[in-house]
Amino acid sequence: MAGLFHKFKNNNDTGFGASATNQAERLINKDGTYNVTRTGVSFLNKFNSYHDLIALSWTKFNLLVFVTYLAMNIIFAFVYWFIGVEHLGGMIANTPFEKFMEAFFFSCQTFSTVGYGRINPQGYLTSAVASMESLIGLMSFALATGLIYGRFARPNIKLLKSENAIIAPYKDGKALMFRIVNARKNALIDLDVSLLVTFLNPDNRMMQFLPLKLERSTINSLALSWTIVHPIDEESPLFNFTQKDFEEIDLQLILSIKAFDESYSQTVHSRVGYVYNDILWGKKFVPMYERSEDGSTTLLHLEKLNEMVDAAI
Amino acid sequence: MAGLFHKFKNNNDTGFGASATNQAERLINKDGTYNVTRTGVSFLNKFNSYHDLIALSWTKFNLLVFVTYLAMNIIFAFVYWFIGVEHLGGMIANTPFEKFMEAFFFSCQTFSTVGYGRINPQGYLTSAVASMESLIGLMSFALATGLIYGRFARPNIKLLKSENAIIAPYKDGKALMFRIVNARKNALIDLDVSLLVTFLNPDNRMMQFLPLKLERSTINSLALSWTIVHPIDEESPLFNFTQKDFEEIDLQLILSIKAFDESYSQTVHSRVGYVYNDILWGKKFVPMYERSEDGSTTLLHLEKLNEMVDAAI
Amino acid sequence: MAGLFHKFKNNNDTGFGASATNQAERLINKDGTYNVTRTGVSFLNKFNSYHDLIALSWTKFNLLVFVTYLAMNIIFAFVYWFIGVEHLGGMIANTPFEKFMEAFFFSCQTFSTVGYGRINPQGYLTSAVASMESLIGLMSFALATGLIYGRFARPNIKLLKSENAIIAPYKDGKALMFRIVNARKNALIDLDVSLLVTFLNPDNRMMQFLPLKLERSTINSLALSWTIVHPIDEESPLFNFTQKDFEEIDLQLILSIKAFDESYSQTVHSRVGYVYNDILWGKKFVPMYERSEDGSTTLLHLEKLNEMVDAAI
Amino acid sequence: MAGLFHKFKNNNDTGFGASATNQAERLINKDGTYNVTRTGVSFLNKFNSYHDLIALSWTKFNLLVFVTYLAMNIIFAFVYWFIGVEHLGGMIANTPFEKFMEAFFFSCQTFSTVGYGRINPQGYLTSAVASMESLIGLMSFALATGLIYGRFARPNIKLLKSENAIIAPYKDGKALMFRIVNARKNALIDLDVSLLVTFLNPDNRMMQFLPLKLERSTINSLALSWTIVHPIDEESPLFNFTQKDFEEIDLQLILSIKAFDESYSQTVHSRVGYVYNDILWGKKFVPMYERSEDGSTTLLHLEKLNEMVDAAI
Repeated sequence: MAGLFHKFKNNNDTGFGASATNQAERLINKDGTYNVTRTGVSFLNKFNSYHDLIALSWTKFNLLVFVTYLAMNIIFAFVYWFIGVEHLGGMIANTPFEKFMEAFFFSCQTFSTVGYGRINPQGYLTSAVASMESLIGLMSFALATGLIYGRFARPNIKLLKSENAIIAPYKDGKALMFRIVNARKNALIDLDVSLLVTFLNPDNRMMQFLPLKLERSTINSLALSWTIVHPIDEESPLFNFTQKDFEEIDLQLILSIKAFDESYSQTVHSRVGYVYNDILWGKKFVPMYERSEDGSTTLLHLEKLNEMVDAAI
Repeated sequence: MAGLFHKFKNNNDTGFGASATNQAERLINKDGTYNVTRTGVSFLNKFNSYHDLIALSWTKFNLLVFVTYLAMNIIFAFVYWFIGVEHLGGMIANTPFEKFMEAFFFSCQTFSTVGYGRINPQGYLTSAVASMESLIGLMSFALATGLIYGRFARPNIKLLKSENAIIAPYKDGKALMFRIVNARKNALIDLDVSLLVTFLNPDNRMMQFLPLKLERSTINSLALSWTIVHPIDEESPLFNFTQKDFEEIDLQLILSIKAFDESYSQTVHSRVGYVYNDILWGKKFVPMYERSEDGSTTLLHLEKLNEMVDAAI
Repeated sequence: MAGLFHKFKNNNDTGFGASATNQAERLINKDGTYNVTRTGVSFLNKFNSYHDLIALSWTKFNLLVFVTYLAMNIIFAFVYWFIGVEHLGGMIANTPFEKFMEAFFFSCQTFSTVGYGRINPQGYLTSAVASMESLIGLMSFALATGLIYGRFARPNIKLLKSENAIIAPYKDGKALMFRIVNARKNALIDLDVSLLVTFLNPDNRMMQFLPLKLERSTINSLALSWTIVHPIDEESPLFNFTQKDFEEIDLQLILSIKAFDESYSQTVHSRVGYVYNDILWGKKFVPMYERSEDGSTTLLHLEKLNEMVDAAI
Repeated sequence: MAGLFHKFKNNNDTGFGASATNQAERLINKDGTYNVTRTGVSFLNKFNSYHDLIALSWTKFNLLVFVTYLAMNIIFAFVYWFIGVEHLGGMIANTPFEKFMEAFFFSCQTFSTVGYGRINPQGYLTSAVASMESLIGLMSFALATGLIYGRFARPNIKLLKSENAIIAPYKDGKALMFRIVNARKNALIDLDVSLLVTFLNPDNRMMQFLPLKLERSTINSLALSWTIVHPIDEESPLFNFTQKDFEEIDLQLILSIKAFDESYSQTVHSRVGYVYNDILWGKKFVPMYERSEDGSTTLLHLEKLNEMVDAAI
């Protein structure tokens, strides 16, 4: 087995280091992100990233908006309270708590610029704070508008990849296969995939990176599903390797997909990492699409992406 | 006829499957979308697509905005009603129905942040709901702003393609021709077209995909109209085919156009599918442009795109 | 002279037609747009173009916003008037005209969602119209926000080109020269220019298009000014042509510039057309940049773009 | 030393001039901008640049918003004052100063569309000005929204480059090295760097530009740090040069980095200039990343970017 490690030219242009002891065991997470943690970044720098905000789920984003709104209004309610609620005209509250609540609701009405006006500012300081609060409110909503559009505008292809890579029968031998499908209706064209294998060379404990040749690495458009195939023939670095070998050399696969998204007119990239125990041996994929009964359309069953049957290899 | 099917190398890089029985009869719709229906997508996933919203017609989009506004205000009117309309100050209504209507209009004034203030919230719960409603209103309009800009920003070239492909006389023989024109003023440059034919091989009932060579496949800019020409000479897979043959082998044409839109600084793609009965035999296109009477400009008659005359082939 | 017309291969990939009689005398306007007028476009299609709106000058855009605001409020004032101004509470007006004006200002306050509330809607119909107006107001401002951002986001390089092309001395002979400079601070990189000459072949009255070879057609970045040079040597189609010849054959030059704008991360294109009388013979450009007195920076004098001196050729 | 200047072909495609006396001593600033000052640009043209506004720090941007808000309201307060504050209803002020302040706060409430309504316009002129002010207010916030989104949407990779270039031991000789690292989490792929050296040819006082060959000029992705290496071997123009030579010939290095930012789906560029005294001799970089203690991730220490140790060369 060991002899094979030197048969192929190492690909160093990967952006990963070659020293295995300096890196985590998993290079690429299942969701395609790098398994890297940055240190030495200030908290603010970490936090105020526009990207983090637009990458939040809608639930969390809405919650964040709500909490910010609540917090801002509580703060301003206290400000009005300390200035003196007697500078707010039109109040009907009697107790201090009721007055605080009126100040809070006045703040809400100011921040959101709804400004009913029953409660209204009368002293200089209260009026000035209210003017400032409505400015802050408007700028906050301008910011929220920017974030919401940012959430919309980021290219979010939903390229589903099979949970597992499989070793399936192929011609007279076997092949490593993946399957991808576009979950959205928007057209993906000019697809280009590349596959990289990385493993630990037991001789020198260095990581090796090798590109794996694909039966076909580009297609014009992803209209249906696409099964990506690396034939494990004599030219393949994986030839003669067994399932146990894969585990021993800590084999990982990095599949990179590049496509042009017509809806956004943007080139989009997607990446997925598989480690040795994500690879199933002796399986084959079940077709995902069929002609509809009336023949008028082709049905693409997204739920069948990971459907496979046993197949002797 | 059948002998021709094997003369040309099949092009498998199309993203369509080769099995004819698994696919709909028409691969590409006339508007360029794939004739594919996805199943296994949850309703929410299907619905909340930003793309669906920005692809709506303006009429439908405005209707959706109006209906949402109406629905939200009816819901909030009921909320204020259940809390108790007595917590809304400034009402002039007497009957329960009148009071409900005042609650509804108060909701409108809150949701849109117009907040006249004649009707104004007084109880804690009513005030809190109103504060929440104005937040929801603002976020809804932030969302609408995002959608409206999204509608603007999507590259929407209006590349008109002739309704029919034609078989026209060309040099000593004949050629398959299409005509395209840019309906908008914005400059389209670096145009690149490719033409694919697909038909059913009667021998094995498999679909074959072949690229068709074009007389010219790129132009610098689409200033006027462009007639795309595939000469049907001895090198063409369509040589010797008759109109009846086209129907028998279920011939389809897929014309793909790629261009750079200067206004958006984006590469845009357009696609159109023609089936055999979209192909007219023995026609030729009438010129679409002419010098204006005073010679100062060139007139491009968009309405003449599909104008053609009979021509013996 | 005529013999030269057939010496060079005609370039047909220009997107213009070859028939001179079908086209205007000037193909490209001085501002780079095509001299083409489209007919057969419906008025609405012509008008509602987002591009027209974002290409308006700021003055016209603001005027359009103001006029729209005024018109909408006049319309709504009439609506409130016809429903009956008695349904607007809080009025202090006495005469019908004063009442109409109050209705108008109420409309303004509703459309802009400022909603002071002194004047406020009381009847069902008036309240409903006011609710609708505030929705329309908000959507209008959402639209304005989209347009304003659209105006910002369009790549607007300000690449200044010399008013004239010149025929200047160059090495042992002469050359056709242009000069360009970036008026903005944003970095333009990877510039790529191409030059096309078009003239009327007197033999067959057809237009010929020929690319002209440039001394250098790409530069890494446009830090200073760039003089684009086409040497008029024996290889040039313009060799031996006189100024009079240029006029006789109706010579036009089309200079296309492609660059990558770092600030927008977008590829931008610019085009300029010169006709024969835009070409000055026997001139040369004066340098546009110099070291500042203290040597700390390079001064680039934009106002010197068209400065030239006589030079014997 | 001088003989070396003619051994290598000068690279003129740089966009800089060749005349040393016409240019500043430093071509590229440390932050990657060109050391060029434009003259002949009108003040307005200089100022109203959208780019300047989105390139402001958030602190300055917010300050600008606040100052504009204040200034607008002071102006409108004077307008209401000159029209006559008696046309503002609902005032509780007595002294002229108090009245001016009420006018000012009324302006704030109008500009921000909060419109409480206690103070409300009653005369024609005051009502008209208030209507206009609310329009201006809304358009200002539309503009602010556009600017805020513009600030978000500009590709802002934070590619950290080492403060210094170093001359480090490399194989049997030495090499010029730089180190870069991505401070953000977003994936940068398809990186492409190029290095240019420029120096003053003492023979003719002209600037020469030469590309320097890199050990590796592209990597697939910047997952960790990347040390860019120019080996100073016999093929290098810098071979045999000493630290003193660098100073004498006024050597400058221009490192250009191109990458594809996955989060923005945009190609981004970065540039950095080093002059001779930014180059440290006899140093080497300390590794920046290590496996975390539990082996689950790779720690990338951004704060170690400029950490180096002495190394004999």
